[in-house]
Amino acid sequence: MTNTIFDFVGDTVGDWKVSSMTTIKGNSLASVSHLSKVPKKELVQTETGIWTLKGIISNLRYTEKEDKDKLAAVQQDLDRANSTLAAFIPIRKSEAWWNLAQDERRKIMENKSRHTQTGMKYLPAIARKLFHSRDIGEPFDFLTWFEYAPADADAFEELLDALRKTEEWNYVEREIDIRLVKSI
Amino acid sequence: MTNTIFDFVGDTVGDWKVSSMTTIKGNSLASVSHLSKVPKKELVQTETGIWTLKGIISNLRYTEKEDKDKLAAVQQDLDRANSTLAAFIPIRKSEAWWNLAQDERRKIMENKSRHTQTGMKYLPAIARKLFHSRDIGEPFDFLTWFEYAPADADAFEELLDALRKTEEWNYVEREIDIRLVKSI
Repeated sequence: MTNTIFDFVGDTVGDWKVSSMTTIKGNSLASVSHLSKVPKKELVQTETGIWTLKGIISNLRYTEKEDKDKLAAVQQDLDRANSTLAAFIPIRKSEAWWNLAQDERRKIMENKSRHTQTGMKYLPAIARKLFHSRDIGEPFDFLTWFEYAPADADAFEELLDALRKTEEWNYVEREIDIRLVKSI
Repeated sequence: MTNTIFDFVGDTVGDWKVSSMTTIKGNSLASVSHLSKVPKKELVQTETGIWTLKGIISNLRYTEKEDKDKLAAVQQDLDRANSTLAAFIPIRKSEAWWNLAQDERRKIMENKSRHTQTGMKYLPAIARKLFHSRDIGEPFDFLTWFEYAPADADAFEELLDALRKTEEWNYVEREIDIRLVKSI
């Protein structure tokens, strides 16, 4: 069975070396020099380290059939040998976002912000994975993870810039941008 | 802050006395005489007892604006003084269900199975709460909870019967029906 529970451990050692850590919005996180993404069997186990953020892989909650099939055809898994750069961006959205109904959230994400379309433009170069945290009482709602080769670093900045300009991003109230270089 | 993490503890003592326990589909659960619904501050704390099932309250994942407003207008909270009967029905859906896209799942739930409409007919008499378990590595996907007065017991059977006849229910692969009487 594929692992669905992960601890993201900020520490003084780890699989990824932190190249920068920027608080985009809201409270910051303690500085760390390294980060590891550790698969867990159970939620009750917790890694130590300077801090640990927990996230779980869930089913896609907004993606419709047509986009789901397109994504499946083009996206690639994490851990590609040439993906030596990564970005770990924990995000929390506002209560106003969570008080919206499913169709209202989807309208803002897709019709207005074209979230899936934008991400798709950068596939398979920028591999992405979304980890859910809100429902398990964590400080962030989502832990977003991106992996790419150095040659695609500019494309990644373009993708991130496009996402941050969307209407959806008005609902983001905390965001920390942590850039990583593979250290093993 | 409202609690969103709950342990459902099956044991020899507890807040609710088990009046019946029926395995509708899939593997059974060990028999217990009592059940308690215990709010938790963190996921890592776990009650003991004969068994414990964990569930978390999340945002509504299918309900659209119009239905969300209608529900908010008519539904009542749990723990009403005259709600001395309850049903605790843990459910797991099949991989086929979870492999569907958001719009496919919604179509089966609402257009074909009229899940929300059916539940709404029995409001405010039958108070309902959905606890999510799938994403936290639990044996069930959902823990469903219903509370009602003895005078509404027939209405509850009617609601349950209607839900079990829907296309949505074809995707249920494990279901345990536990009926409860308030013991405190």
